[in-house]
Amino acid sequence: MSKGKITLNCDMGESYGAWKMGDDQAVMPFVDMANIACGFHASDPSIMIQTITLALQNNVQIGAHPSYPDLQGFGRRSLAMTPNDITQNVIYQIGALRGLCQSVNTDVEYVKPHGALYNDMMVDESIFEAIIDAVSCFNLPLMMLATQTTDQHLDIADRYDVPLLFEAFADRTYLSDGSLAPRNLKGAVLDNEDDILNQVKQIAQYGKVRTLDGCSLLIEADTICVHGDNEASIALIKKIRHALLIDED
Amino acid sequence: MSKGKITLNCDMGESYGAWKMGDDQAVMPFVDMANIACGFHASDPSIMIQTITLALQNNVQIGAHPSYPDLQGFGRRSLAMTPNDITQNVIYQIGALRGLCQSVNTDVEYVKPHGALYNDMMVDESIFEAIIDAVSCFNLPLMMLATQTTDQHLDIADRYDVPLLFEAFADRTYLSDGSLAPRNLKGAVLDNEDDILNQVKQIAQYGKVRTLDGCSLLIEADTICVHGDNEASIALIKKIRHALLIDED
Amino acid sequence: MSKGKITLNCDMGESYGAWKMGDDQAVMPFVDMANIACGFHASDPSIMIQTITLALQNNVQIGAHPSYPDLQGFGRRSLAMTPNDITQNVIYQIGALRGLCQSVNTDVEYVKPHGALYNDMMVDESIFEAIIDAVSCFNLPLMMLATQTTDQHLDIADRYDVPLLFEAFADRTYLSDGSLAPRNLKGAVLDNEDDILNQVKQIAQYGKVRTLDGCSLLIEADTICVHGDNEASIALIKKIRHALLIDED
Amino acid sequence: MSKGKITLNCDMGESYGAWKMGDDQAVMPFVDMANIACGFHASDPSIMIQTITLALQNNVQIGAHPSYPDLQGFGRRSLAMTPNDITQNVIYQIGALRGLCQSVNTDVEYVKPHGALYNDMMVDESIFEAIIDAVSCFNLPLMMLATQTTDQHLDIADRYDVPLLFEAFADRTYLSDGSLAPRNLKGAVLDNEDDILNQVKQIAQYGKVRTLDGCSLLIEADTICVHGDNEASIALIKKIRHALLIDED
Repeated sequence: MSKGKITLNCDMGESYGAWKMGDDQAVMPFVDMANIACGFHASDPSIMIQTITLALQNNVQIGAHPSYPDLQGFGRRSLAMTPNDITQNVIYQIGALRGLCQSVNTDVEYVKPHGALYNDMMVDESIFEAIIDAVSCFNLPLMMLATQTTDQHLDIADRYDVPLLFEAFADRTYLSDGSLAPRNLKGAVLDNEDDILNQVKQIAQYGKVRTLDGCSLLIEADTICVHGDNEASIALIKKIRHALLIDED
Repeated sequence: MSKGKITLNCDMGESYGAWKMGDDQAVMPFVDMANIACGFHASDPSIMIQTITLALQNNVQIGAHPSYPDLQGFGRRSLAMTPNDITQNVIYQIGALRGLCQSVNTDVEYVKPHGALYNDMMVDESIFEAIIDAVSCFNLPLMMLATQTTDQHLDIADRYDVPLLFEAFADRTYLSDGSLAPRNLKGAVLDNEDDILNQVKQIAQYGKVRTLDGCSLLIEADTICVHGDNEASIALIKKIRHALLIDED
Repeated sequence: MSKGKITLNCDMGESYGAWKMGDDQAVMPFVDMANIACGFHASDPSIMIQTITLALQNNVQIGAHPSYPDLQGFGRRSLAMTPNDITQNVIYQIGALRGLCQSVNTDVEYVKPHGALYNDMMVDESIFEAIIDAVSCFNLPLMMLATQTTDQHLDIADRYDVPLLFEAFADRTYLSDGSLAPRNLKGAVLDNEDDILNQVKQIAQYGKVRTLDGCSLLIEADTICVHGDNEASIALIKKIRHALLIDED
Repeated sequence: MSKGKITLNCDMGESYGAWKMGDDQAVMPFVDMANIACGFHASDPSIMIQTITLALQNNVQIGAHPSYPDLQGFGRRSLAMTPNDITQNVIYQIGALRGLCQSVNTDVEYVKPHGALYNDMMVDESIFEAIIDAVSCFNLPLMMLATQTTDQHLDIADRYDVPLLFEAFADRTYLSDGSLAPRNLKGAVLDNEDDILNQVKQIAQYGKVRTLDGCSLLIEADTICVHGDNEASIALIKKIRHALLIDED
C-alpha cells in the first residue's frame, strides 16, 4: 500500500465446483494483490483455500472479494438488498475467507467488492456506507475506483476510520466524470496492447488518463486492476508489470 | 465447560430469509450454549447477527453449528463430500460466524456439527478427523455425543489437540451401544414430561440412563441438548433448568 | 375466469424444505385460485406436489407463481436480470410446475409473477414483455394488477396473444395513479376488518375503490388477492368469500 | 432408438452462469442424443434453451439429464434423499426442460440421470423405482447402464410401463460383474485411442467387451456414451462415429 509504487491487483479464485475460470496459477506470480472470491458469486471453500495457498506461495496480498449472493449471475446483477443485509453479507464473506486464511497462518489484508456490488457502492452512498461498516469491523482497507471517489465517500470512510485504496483500470476507458465508460460504448474496453500499456504508463508516471471523450482525467491510483482470463491477458500482465518496473527506476 | 455443572445447549438461528423456525427469543434466557446455524443448512447473515446479539444479551455461549451445504434438506441428509471438502466447508462456516461475532465484540466458543454431519462424524472416523482438523484451526472445543465417543475419537482429538465437550439428550432414548435409538423405533423420543425430567436427573446425578432395551448406560455429559421448537418444548426447558438447579444444591 | 364472478386468489406452497409458511390446508377450501411457488423464491418439488394435490382436492385452479431466483430474499428483491434471462427463467418455472401437475393429471391454468418480479413487470415494459413471451409459450393467461395496467401492457399482451386476468387487493390501499400505496406509507395496509370487507364490496359491486389520497379509482377486477398467513387472515378470507357470495345474489 | 444402429449420446449444456464446460457447438454435429443438464448439477434456464436450440439445429434427440440438487458438487456426490423426494425432484427437472423445449416447438425424448444419481439408481432399487416413477409420468424411455441391468430393474420398468435404453461406455473398462471399473483402478479409463475404437467396435459388432480382469462381458447396447470435454475428445468422437458407420455397412 506504499504510495510511490503502483501495485497490480487481479480477481482470483473465481472457479466454482467443477467449473474452472481463469488461470490463477499462471497469473499469481505477476500480481501483488489477489482479490479472492468468497463463495457468493464464485468459489467454494476448497477453491478458496487453494487460492489462498497459491497467494501465500507467491507472496501476494490476499483481499476479500465479496459479492451479492448470486452464483447464477456471477455477482454482475444488482440485487435490491437492504444496507443492513449488505453489511451482514459482507461481514460473513470476509469472515469466511479470514477463517480459511487463518487455517494456513495468513490473513486477509484488504477488501474489494465484486461486480454489481462494486458498481453500486460507487454510486449509492447507503451501499457504500453499508460496506464501509462491514469492512471497519476487520480494521481493513477498502479498495474503490480512484476516479469516482467523492468527498462523501471520503467522509464516510473517515467516520468509520477505514483506510482507502484507490484503483485504476488498465484496459477500461473513462468518461470525463470519472466513471468507467459503459461496456456498450465503442472504445470502452481497450483491446490494443499498446493503448493499454500507454494508459498504464500515463497513470503511473503522470497520474492521469485521456478519457473516451478526449479530456484529461486525474487518477491518483494505488493499484491497477488487471485480468487473468486467458493466455493473451496473462501475457499482457507481464508486459504491464515490466512497464511499471521501468517506470519505477 | 466446568465439570460439575451440566449446561443446556440448544440449536438456534435456524430461521432462513422469510421463514421462521423456533422461538429463539423465548428460549435464549434458559440455556447456556447456543448452537448457531452458519448458513449452510439454515440461517443467513442477518439472522446470524440477530442470534449472536440475542445470545450476547443473555450471556449465552456462542457455538458454531456447521452443516453439509443443503438448505433444501435442512442438513439432515448425508452428502458424500470428501474429507478435505468437509474440512474446508466447516472452516468456512466457523470463520463466517466468527466474523459476525467479532463485529459485535464477541466470539465463537465451541463447535457442534449439525444433523447428518453430526451423525456421520460419530460413525465415520475420516469425517470426524476432517471436522477435528477444521476445529483445531480455531483452538475451539468440539461438542459430540457422550455415549458414542470411542477411543479412536479421543486419539484423533488428542492428536489435533482439540478439547471435547460431551453431550447427552434430554428427550431421546439410547440403545445399549450408546447410539441414539433411531426415530422410527417406538419410544425413541420421550414425549412424557416426567420421563424427560427423570432422564435429565439421572444424567446429572448418576451419570447414567436406562436404555430403550432396558440396560443401564453410563453417560459422562458436560451438556444436555434441548429443543426450542414450540411453546411446549420451551416450557419443558424451564423445568429441565429448574431440575438441574435443584440437583446442584 | 368468468366475468361477473370475482374469484379469490392466494399465494400457496410457500414453505421450503423444513420451513413452513402459511396454512395452505386451512385456506385452500376458501379460495378459487392457488398461486403456487415454483422453487425460485419458495417451495421445493415435494412441497409443490403436495400443494398441487391439495388444490386438486379442493377443486381450486392452479397458477404458476414464478419469481426471481432468490430464496434468501423470498423473491422480494429486484434482481437486474436481462429480459431474455427472465423469459427463460419463467418458462423453466412454469414447465417445472406443469410437469408436477401432469404427474397427477392436472395442469397449470394461469401465471402470476411473484413479489419483486410482479412489481417490476408493472413498471418496466421490457420485463412485462419478457414475461408475456414466456407465458405465451404455454397458452396461459397472465394475472396482473388491474389498476396499473396501461395501453402499452394491453398492446404487448395482444401482440403475443396472451389473455389477461386483472386482480385487485383486499387489504392494500391504492394511490390515485393506480399503484399500490408503498408499505411504508401510513394506511398502506388495511388492518381493520370492516375496511377490508368494505373495499372488497366496493370492488365487486361498483368496480372502484377510494384511494389513500381520497380519490375514487376504477378497478375492473377478475380476481381479488387474499393472504393466508395466519389464523386471523384465514378467518378474514371466509368473511370475504361470504361478502362476495351475498354480492352475487 | 432403432435396434441395429448404435447411437452416440453425450452430456450437454453443463455450463453454468458465467462458467463454461465442454464445447457443445463442436460436439453436437457428431452425436445423436444430447443429455441436457436441468439446472440441478449444472446449466441454467438460458443455457438450457441455447443447448436445446443447438440440438434442434443438428437434428439431435433431446434427453433430460436430471441430478441430485448439488451445483457445488456437480451432482457427483450421493445425497441421502428419500425416494419420494427423488421422484418429485426428477419430475421437476424433466418438466422444466420440457417447458423450455416446448417453447421452441420440440420435446424431451428420453431421460438419463446424471452422476451420483445414475450410479445410485443402478445399485439401489428404491432409487431406481423412484426415478422410473418420475419418468413414467412423461411416457419417456429411461437410459441406463446395459451391463448392470438386472431382472429386478426390468420388472420395475415393466410395472411402470417405462421403455429402457441401454448404454455402454466407449472409454471406460468394465469389471466382470458388469459394473464400470472404479476410476481409482489402473486401466479404468481407456486413454489410448486405438483401445477406445476397438472397444466401440466390439460393442457394435459382437455385443461384448473384454473386462479389466480379462473376461468377456456381453453388452447389448442401444447407445454409446461419449464425452466432449476438450479438443482431443471431440476428435475422438468423430473417429468413433466413423468406426460405427463402417460397421453398419
